Amino acid sequence: MEQRIEPQSGSAFILKRGQRLKVIDPMGQQVSDMVLFNAHDIKEKISSGKTLDFEENLLITNGNYLWSNRSNKMMKIIQDTNGRNDFLLAPCSPETFKIMYNHNSYHPSCFENLIKNLSKYEIEADDIPTAFNIFMNVQFKDTGELTVKPPLSSAGDYVVFEALMDLVVGLTACSAEMSNGGSFKPIDYHIIN
Amino acid sequence: MEQRIEPQSGSAFILKRGQRLKVIDPMGQQVSDMVLFNAHDIKEKISSGKTLDFEENLLITNGNYLWSNRSNKMMKIIQDTNGRNDFLLAPCSPETFKIMYNHNSYHPSCFENLIKNLSKYEIEADDIPTAFNIFMNVQFKDTGELTVKPPLSSAGDYVVFEALMDLVVGLTACSAEMSNGGSFKPIDYHIIN
Repeated sequence: MEQRIEPQSGSAFILKRGQRLKVIDPMGQQVSDMVLFNAHDIKEKISSGKTLDFEENLLITNGNYLWSNRSNKMMKIIQDTNGRNDFLLAPCSPETFKIMYNHNSYHPSCFENLIKNLSKYEIEADDIPTAFNIFMNVQFKDTGELTVKPPLSSAGDYVVFEALMDLVVGLTACSAEMSNGGSFKPIDYHIIN
Repeated sequence: MEQRIEPQSGSAFILKRGQRLKVIDPMGQQVSDMVLFNAHDIKEKISSGKTLDFEENLLITNGNYLWSNRSNKMMKIIQDTNGRNDFLLAPCSPETFKIMYNHNSYHPSCFENLIKNLSKYEIEADDIPTAFNIFMNVQFKDTGELTVKPPLSSAGDYVVFEALMDLVVGLTACSAEMSNGGSFKPIDYHIIN
């Protein structure tokens, strides 16, 4: 059954080894930050550094694996109808809006939404790693310059992940204006047995 | 006084706020992996995701800051005579040599050398984040493809960092053939008050 993550919010759930997770952008141009933990030992978690190293590519998509800090495969990407994701940038946090966007009042963020939803698994703020940012469109130049552009995803684009171990998954509908083409939309997901 | 890190080994030490750390490649083409922790609370540590986000660049060099997972500045880069460093790839670990290089017997690694030296500060394997890889030359293509090339550093090249908080620093002379032009050399460092 399809679940909806409302705009600027998040979810956390168990995904068993062998189950598949389909993450859908129902309206287009909406990012979803995903973090992963070993369900039996939350000190093992998704690692950008290990994934970029083993996959030898900045752009992680169909056919690539998501690796843990302990060099184990956590997920395989089975389908990716959009093809552009980011694994460089940390989840947007209260400080992102203050430091990068000079926004001084309260602003929802992926970081807060991850903590709020993952707390039931005893995962705390300092445990949150760099997320795999589904549909996020971060462009890089030869000079290394990074620019956050609107996602290339259209309504209905999706990515399917297969779990290679029992996982705790944290998932958001991203809260940052810059990352989502200026408006906040929901994210849908579906666990397939 | 200059300290020497012997080939394929590591070191860990305290760097006080305001002190500077000079990391020198004495023979050329030698990488040094560096990790940072808040000396008063080791759950705060260097973050690739936060640094790439706030600095808006893949190539971190002179003038850039190294940020923590809590969005605080840990260090500023004051001088960089080489100019090429990496902040994408995880420290080489026993699994790196097994998975990427089909090397099945014991091989020294930055990961092991970091753990060994940081254990006196009660920092454990799972606490080690993606390191700032000084002098490491990781090339990226428009397609995202990553290639580890020999460092561009010549004998005597150095990077100077200023500590912006009291830090525990872990530092290595990297153990991976591919990252160091095929031979293992020492790394020198110097704490400047």
